[in-house]
Amino acid sequence: MSRRLSWVASAQDEATDFPLDNLPLCVFRRAGSAQAWRIGAGIGTQILDLRAAVTAGLLDPLSAALIEACSQPSLNALFALGTDAVGALRSRLQDLLAEQAPDTNKTAGCLLAQAEVEHTVPAQVGDYTDFLSSYHHAYNVGMMLRPNDPVLPNFHTIPIAYHGRSSSLLVSGEPVYRPRGVQRVAHGSNDTRFGPTARLDLEVELGAFIGPGNRRGHAIPVDEAGAQVVGLCVLNDWSARDIQSWETQPLGPFLGKNFATTLSPWVVCTQALAPYRTEPAPRRPEAPALDAYLQPAGEHWTYEIHLETRLSTPAMRERSLPAVVVSRSLFSRDSVWTFAQMVAHHTVNGCNLRPGDLLGSGTLSGPDVGSEGCMLELTRAGSKPLQLPSGEERRFLEDGDEVSITAFCERPGLPRIGFGQCVARIEQAP
Amino acid sequence: MSRRLSWVASAQDEATDFPLDNLPLCVFRRAGSAQAWRIGAGIGTQILDLRAAVTAGLLDPLSAALIEACSQPSLNALFALGTDAVGALRSRLQDLLAEQAPDTNKTAGCLLAQAEVEHTVPAQVGDYTDFLSSYHHAYNVGMMLRPNDPVLPNFHTIPIAYHGRSSSLLVSGEPVYRPRGVQRVAHGSNDTRFGPTARLDLEVELGAFIGPGNRRGHAIPVDEAGAQVVGLCVLNDWSARDIQSWETQPLGPFLGKNFATTLSPWVVCTQALAPYRTEPAPRRPEAPALDAYLQPAGEHWTYEIHLETRLSTPAMRERSLPAVVVSRSLFSRDSVWTFAQMVAHHTVNGCNLRPGDLLGSGTLSGPDVGSEGCMLELTRAGSKPLQLPSGEERRFLEDGDEVSITAFCERPGLPRIGFGQCVARIEQAP
Repeated sequence: MSRRLSWVASAQDEATDFPLDNLPLCVFRRAGSAQAWRIGAGIGTQILDLRAAVTAGLLDPLSAALIEACSQPSLNALFALGTDAVGALRSRLQDLLAEQAPDTNKTAGCLLAQAEVEHTVPAQVGDYTDFLSSYHHAYNVGMMLRPNDPVLPNFHTIPIAYHGRSSSLLVSGEPVYRPRGVQRVAHGSNDTRFGPTARLDLEVELGAFIGPGNRRGHAIPVDEAGAQVVGLCVLNDWSARDIQSWETQPLGPFLGKNFATTLSPWVVCTQALAPYRTEPAPRRPEAPALDAYLQPAGEHWTYEIHLETRLSTPAMRERSLPAVVVSRSLFSRDSVWTFAQMVAHHTVNGCNLRPGDLLGSGTLSGPDVGSEGCMLELTRAGSKPLQLPSGEERRFLEDGDEVSITAFCERPGLPRIGFGQCVARIEQAP
Repeated sequence: MSRRLSWVASAQDEATDFPLDNLPLCVFRRAGSAQAWRIGAGIGTQILDLRAAVTAGLLDPLSAALIEACSQPSLNALFALGTDAVGALRSRLQDLLAEQAPDTNKTAGCLLAQAEVEHTVPAQVGDYTDFLSSYHHAYNVGMMLRPNDPVLPNFHTIPIAYHGRSSSLLVSGEPVYRPRGVQRVAHGSNDTRFGPTARLDLEVELGAFIGPGNRRGHAIPVDEAGAQVVGLCVLNDWSARDIQSWETQPLGPFLGKNFATTLSPWVVCTQALAPYRTEPAPRRPEAPALDAYLQPAGEHWTYEIHLETRLSTPAMRERSLPAVVVSRSLFSRDSVWTFAQMVAHHTVNGCNLRPGDLLGSGTLSGPDVGSEGCMLELTRAGSKPLQLPSGEERRFLEDGDEVSITAFCERPGLPRIGFGQCVARIEQAP
């Protein structure tokens, strides 16, 4: 499958995240303006303003419901229409932006440069759920806590998850304030202190946005669950390990996580990801047979998505040293659950998902050195600091550090697509 | 302080939950109608329709912002204005409804019978947080899990909490569907089965609605935190103990809780509760000194609120046997944290609260037999079933069972106020 060509020159760039095959969705406005937030589609270095496209009549062939949804200040109404509707919108946008498109002047009038806009979180997230889906993450962290029994028996049987915080979901670029709190002074100790966290961490994840969702009491069968995911983004689930360590029993993480979660501005639609469907990793030998509600009768696939995490420090930026890659993950390898299985599990008890709800994949750690999805693992709880090109070391994140996570799909013969950036800098609390 | 009298006859009833001193807020519409949801204030057996009151000009002396907030379909905008604004609204409503009010005809035209309306959840809850604040609940449940170490050391130092599910917050009267899921077959066993929960439980709690909230990164000092709570309701945090038991490590409760949480329709404002302020229970002797952010420099108070939980079964209703009281809690005795301390803790790491966010107190269990706030404790994990007047036993809840929680404040010389009912019936999943 070769790449589709666009008359937007920057979309032809070999290195672009946003060729015509991608067209990720976002919510944006002109930077610094008081414009209403509006939906956009990324193409090369440009954004197609869908609100402007509606006004210009460019979306007239679409249904009234779709046109109405494209005029909204968030993606919720569009997601509520489901993946087929998003697919219809994408087809129309691809027709407008394709190399052979007639009458491109009107469309060009709805484009503006990504450099000139600011973003907000793409959907109003009613509930944000974060999963634990990487065996290696569970194993590596478990080894620090319970070396004789690192992976709990429930891990293999169900997708473990907890509810995260919606209010502190941030869009890429917003600062992350170092949280204060009561923290465990050292592993295994019951001594605590109060102050700014000394163990601020990142977590490399993918986020999945939910489409129509389900009525309370009505589970979504796993074979229908993949279609409930309308698109994916990159997610950084910031964590304060010392706060988390003290508070986490018996009810799980709270202040150690809920101060910030950063999302990339772009939602890569499942249609763009379809060429990168691949078989899920085989179940581990010690894992028991799956309960039927988690076992698809039909197709069983995940997405082959690479993630790269880069770190830069103030000293590195001062000396113009580029950010250094500290971790490389691969979703299809590192998650033992597909998003379809996560959706089926989430609803099997009758819990209702709503349009725009967000699922986090959980930290994506792989089997190799350098594929661990958080500092806690990368530095073995701080005992093996990262060595940086500036001569500095990092056990955990320090003020001024900037973490950037990118993701992309790339395979010979297939058009490369990317997710843009999920980036944020650590600041002292105001 | 004697009771304020109203020209609404039913508000004079000795047994009413809603004398003029109370005036709890709700969101309602005429039952079965397609009316827009509107804000109401309860008085006796009646509701004052605030949207109608705005139209009739009855709220004209109030600020434009307050009048606008009273016309909304949820309480969020009103809560965002803060407790003083709610106080101003209450004063105006009390003037309109007081025995000596002039020109009551117009006001009477905005009243309708509570029996003729239906309710919805009073605020759009962005995030729902549930705390663990009863020592006896922690102790009783801990004894089942870790008899040598029932109460974890963190319990005494910080308010333990987790994020609950917003999408499945229900208003009193909505059915609760028995959840399905992978569940632990027996305590201590790693054997599981899939099916409807066999250990469906209730949890007796108060809910607190947040006012203006805080900007991310800016903690709310504990001395200012009480004013962030605009009102309280009754909350039942339904739980499936066998599902919860299997999934809960290491990230806390998920499917065992997120299928349903029921709220009473009425928000009792803190002005109505002010006469029932009382000193918090003394800290337990084994509890260490509090970190400064949890220790008020000024006034330190909680609310003296009684809760009663009633159970009825289909067989009891068939034989016209009244629901039986199974539990009596007392918030000021049973919670080791005040809502001010919960707010201060929630924000100390910079987490932002938004108007209409909901805090659950956690299960309110007291020291005495019959004051335990859930079936797990009341029946000692099912080993001592409740004996019902129908001759039936209950270890956990069965289909058709109806749980009703009420709450009230009552003290000689003070006007009694009540919270209305938080009731729901268990049904098979559809």
